[in-house]
Amino acid sequence: MQKLAVGMAIRLILVGKTAEAYVREGMSLYTSRIGRYCRFSVVEIPDLKQVSALSPAQIKEKEGVEILKNIHPGDEVILLDERGKSFSSIGWAQHLEQRLAHCQKDLVFVVGGSWGFSQAVYDRGSDMLSLSKMTCSHQLIRLFFLEQLYRAFTIMKGEPYHHE
Amino acid sequence: MQKLAVGMAIRLILVGKTAEAYVREGMSLYTSRIGRYCRFSVVEIPDLKQVSALSPAQIKEKEGVEILKNIHPGDEVILLDERGKSFSSIGWAQHLEQRLAHCQKDLVFVVGGSWGFSQAVYDRGSDMLSLSKMTCSHQLIRLFFLEQLYRAFTIMKGEPYHHE
Repeated sequence: MQKLAVGMAIRLILVGKTAEAYVREGMSLYTSRIGRYCRFSVVEIPDLKQVSALSPAQIKEKEGVEILKNIHPGDEVILLDERGKSFSSIGWAQHLEQRLAHCQKDLVFVVGGSWGFSQAVYDRGSDMLSLSKMTCSHQLIRLFFLEQLYRAFTIMKGEPYHHE
Repeated sequence: MQKLAVGMAIRLILVGKTAEAYVREGMSLYTSRIGRYCRFSVVEIPDLKQVSALSPAQIKEKEGVEILKNIHPGDEVILLDERGKSFSSIGWAQHLEQRLAHCQKDLVFVVGGSWGFSQAVYDRGSDMLSLSKMTCSHQLIRLFFLEQLYRAFTIMKGEPYHHE
């Protein structure tokens, strides 16, 4: 595993609070595991207010503004999106290792809300990652992604967590 | 949505206890939701004892014997396996609806242990389903599958849970 560049970190931006206690518990478990391998943080964007008065397009737009506030110049942004690239866990670990080696600043993953991303967010993303062809709840996908991020680090380090 | 045949049910067989409390909590949430649409039960096969003395092949073999004890003649068996068929959530709902319409007895899904299935279990399965090209922990996959099963029923019923 290559050394991470000094000052670089991985950030996960999530749209909406983690509503379910059991999801929060699992996330905290994986977040602390991932913290052994890199500087890692999770940013939760608060849920929009009076969302029932808004159309899906308006929701995506407003969420997009909040997402972009949490992205800094130079960050490399990867959107979790069903239309993105899909990998085996090994392929994903190799891809992540390359990204980390070439990333100038922070590597930022974004999980959108139930309606997906606004065009402005798509424009800021440099790549899209798909964990599954299936649509997963925007709560559970948090757990699923964190487990894949943790798994990728164990693969890069040759640790026995992953079985082929 | 077609009516389920009388006496028919869906069963999920899991190898190994659900170790983490947060996974159990999420499973119980989805299990009760799925119970609104069909007779649904989860069978957990106890973890093998003294597993560190066994090779992966021996583990698969022993787990396979336990899995097969929980499958009855006439059951239609679908194995969750990375090499299986993959679907979008809509495609999966349509596939499940067809399966339910033609299934003679119970529809049984099986999630294996960390090392996968023995040959005897592969031979008994009539199909394989892949939720992702990525390897997911055999604990988290439980949650992921239950959410997809619940989502499939809401799609069949035209309920607003799923957003395209």
